[in-house]
Amino acid sequence: MSTNLRVLVTNAPSQEPALRIDGDAVATRCKALGVEAEITVCDDPLALERFAGAADVIFTNHKFDIGRVRKASPRLKWVQVISAGVEAYLKTLPEGVILTNASGVHAEKGAEFILTSVLMLNYRIPFFTSRKVQRTWQPVFESVAHGKVATILGVGAIGGAAVPLLRARGIRVIGVTSRGETDAPVDECIALDALDTVLPGTDFLVSTLPLTPATEGRIGAEQFDLMPRGAGVVVVGRAKVLDYGALAARLESGHLGGAVLDVFPEEPVAESDAIWSMPNLVMTPHCSVDDHAGYIDRCLDIFGENLRRFQAGDPLLNVVSPDRGY
Amino acid sequence: MSTNLRVLVTNAPSQEPALRIDGDAVATRCKALGVEAEITVCDDPLALERFAGAADVIFTNHKFDIGRVRKASPRLKWVQVISAGVEAYLKTLPEGVILTNASGVHAEKGAEFILTSVLMLNYRIPFFTSRKVQRTWQPVFESVAHGKVATILGVGAIGGAAVPLLRARGIRVIGVTSRGETDAPVDECIALDALDTVLPGTDFLVSTLPLTPATEGRIGAEQFDLMPRGAGVVVVGRAKVLDYGALAARLESGHLGGAVLDVFPEEPVAESDAIWSMPNLVMTPHCSVDDHAGYIDRCLDIFGENLRRFQAGDPLLNVVSPDRGY
Repeated sequence: MSTNLRVLVTNAPSQEPALRIDGDAVATRCKALGVEAEITVCDDPLALERFAGAADVIFTNHKFDIGRVRKASPRLKWVQVISAGVEAYLKTLPEGVILTNASGVHAEKGAEFILTSVLMLNYRIPFFTSRKVQRTWQPVFESVAHGKVATILGVGAIGGAAVPLLRARGIRVIGVTSRGETDAPVDECIALDALDTVLPGTDFLVSTLPLTPATEGRIGAEQFDLMPRGAGVVVVGRAKVLDYGALAARLESGHLGGAVLDVFPEEPVAESDAIWSMPNLVMTPHCSVDDHAGYIDRCLDIFGENLRRFQAGDPLLNVVSPDRGY
Repeated sequence: MSTNLRVLVTNAPSQEPALRIDGDAVATRCKALGVEAEITVCDDPLALERFAGAADVIFTNHKFDIGRVRKASPRLKWVQVISAGVEAYLKTLPEGVILTNASGVHAEKGAEFILTSVLMLNYRIPFFTSRKVQRTWQPVFESVAHGKVATILGVGAIGGAAVPLLRARGIRVIGVTSRGETDAPVDECIALDALDTVLPGTDFLVSTLPLTPATEGRIGAEQFDLMPRGAGVVVVGRAKVLDYGALAARLESGHLGGAVLDVFPEEPVAESDAIWSMPNLVMTPHCSVDDHAGYIDRCLDIFGENLRRFQAGDPLLNVVSPDRGY
C-alpha cells in the first residue's frame, strides 16, 4: 500500500453548514478505516487549481470544472461528489478521471417521499389545494390506492427503494429502465422505448430519471395525452426530463388530475415564474429527497469505502458512466 | 325462526345515487343469507311514520328523528345506519331501540388517509402549499418519518387500522382511548385523561374521535401549546372535538407546523368562512375517509350479518352505546 495518497477536500464557497465536508471528519474516517492519506482542505475556488495540483483524489460538494482543474493536476484520478445528479460535472469530465456520485444516500427519504406523493395524488390533494384557494367545497370520493398502477421511470437507488413501499399499499408497480431490466421487486419491467404502451394503464407516473441526452425532454405532450384522464405525475429526479409547459396545460385542462413536483427547470423558481400559479399542483422546493440530517455522514460512508477500494485497487462504488450520464 | 320480520328501508330525500340503499339489493342479500323478511322501501320522509308503523327494523341513510318515528312504531326494535358518526340519531333515541352503525366500513380508506396525512405533515406539505400561494421558495430539509411519534385519539376501526401502517414507517404510535386500553398494536396506550402528558413528545396528533359530551371541545389551546414547535394535527373524526379557532391561531403563529383537516364544524364550509384562508393547512372536503365505491355493499354486509343475528337472537355487531355516544 502506498502511503502518499493525497486527498483534496473542497467545499463550494457558499455551501450551507449542514452540507460542508469537514477535513478533520475525513481524516478521522480514514484513520478508522486504516487508510493512510494526506488530507488538504481548500474552500477558495480561486486557489483550487493550485491545491489540486498535488491531489490524487478530490472529495467535493462544489460543482467545479473538473476539466480545468485536471489540467493543473495530472495526478488526479478520481472525484467523489455528494450529489446523485452529475450532469454539471460531466460537461468537462476528462478521460482518465473517475467520477463517483452519492447515489443511494437519498434512497430512504426519496422512497418515502414517492410513497407520500403517490398517496397524495390518490387522495386528490393537489386538486383540493387549488379548491382551497378558490374557496370551493367539491368532494371527490376516491377509492383506496389498492389495485392502481404506478409506473416508475428510473429504478435506481430511489426508485427501487420506493417499489416495496408502493406494493405494500397494493399498488401495481411497473419499472421503466433503459434496457427493461432491474433487480428491484417490480411487478413488470419495461424499456423506456416501450413506455407509451403502458401509459394508458398508468394512474401515477413517477420520474426519478437523471438528466442525460437520452432523457432530456423525453416525457411531453404525447406521453401525458396517453395517460388516462385524472392520472397524476410525480417528479423527484431532474425536471428537464419532462416538458413542464405541456404538463401545466394538462393540469389546467383537467386531463391530468394532479402533480407533485420537487424539481424545476430553474431553481430557485423565480417569484415571477408562471409555475407558482399552475393549478392542481403541489410544489416542494427541491428538498423532499435530500435529508441534511446525517447526509454528509452517509456521503463519508461512501467516500471512505471508495477510498479503501481505491487504495486496494478494487472497483469503486457509484462510478458514473459518462456515456449513460448517471 | 319467525317469518314475519318486517324491514323498512328508507333513504334521505336528496341522497346521492351512490349511497342509495336499494330495496331489491336488501331482499337479494336476505335471500342469500337465508333470512326471511318482508322488505318495504319508503323514500318519502312525510310518509315515514305511516310506513314505519309496521316495521321491526329500519335500515337507513336518512338522519330522521327516531324518537318521533318510534311513537308511531311500537314494534321498532332496531335501526341500522350507514354512517359511523351517530350524534344526530342519539339526540332522540328512545329506550328499547337498538342503534347500530357502520363502524369499520371506513377502516381501510381512513387508515390509508391517516398514513397519507401524517406523511404529508412530515414532508411539510401544508407549509409548502402556503408558500406556493405566496410564490416563496423556502426549502425545509426534514428527516424521514422513522422515529417520530404519532398520537392517535380514538383507536376504533379507523384509528386501529392506521396503527400498523404508521408503524411500518418506523413511527412510534401512542393510542388514546377513554379507558387507556386497546387491542390495536400500539406502542403505548393511555387514557384520554392522561393526554397532556404525552403531547410534549407528539410530532403528529391524529383525531378520529366521535362527537360526544365527553369529547366535545376536548382539544384546545392548552393541548396545542403543549405540543412541540412544528408539530402537526390531522382530524378525520368529528371537527367539534377540537377548537379550530385555537388551531388556526397556532398555524398562523407557526407554533404548529401544519394541519390536515377532512372535517369542519359546519359543512359544507361557506365561501365566506375564514377557514379557507387559514395558512399551512390542507383541507379535504369530508371525503377522505368515505369510499363511495362499494360503500353500500359493505354496509349491506354489516346489515345482513346483523339481520341474521337479530333473527337468531344473537348480539348485534356495531351496537352504539348511548352513554358513550359511539
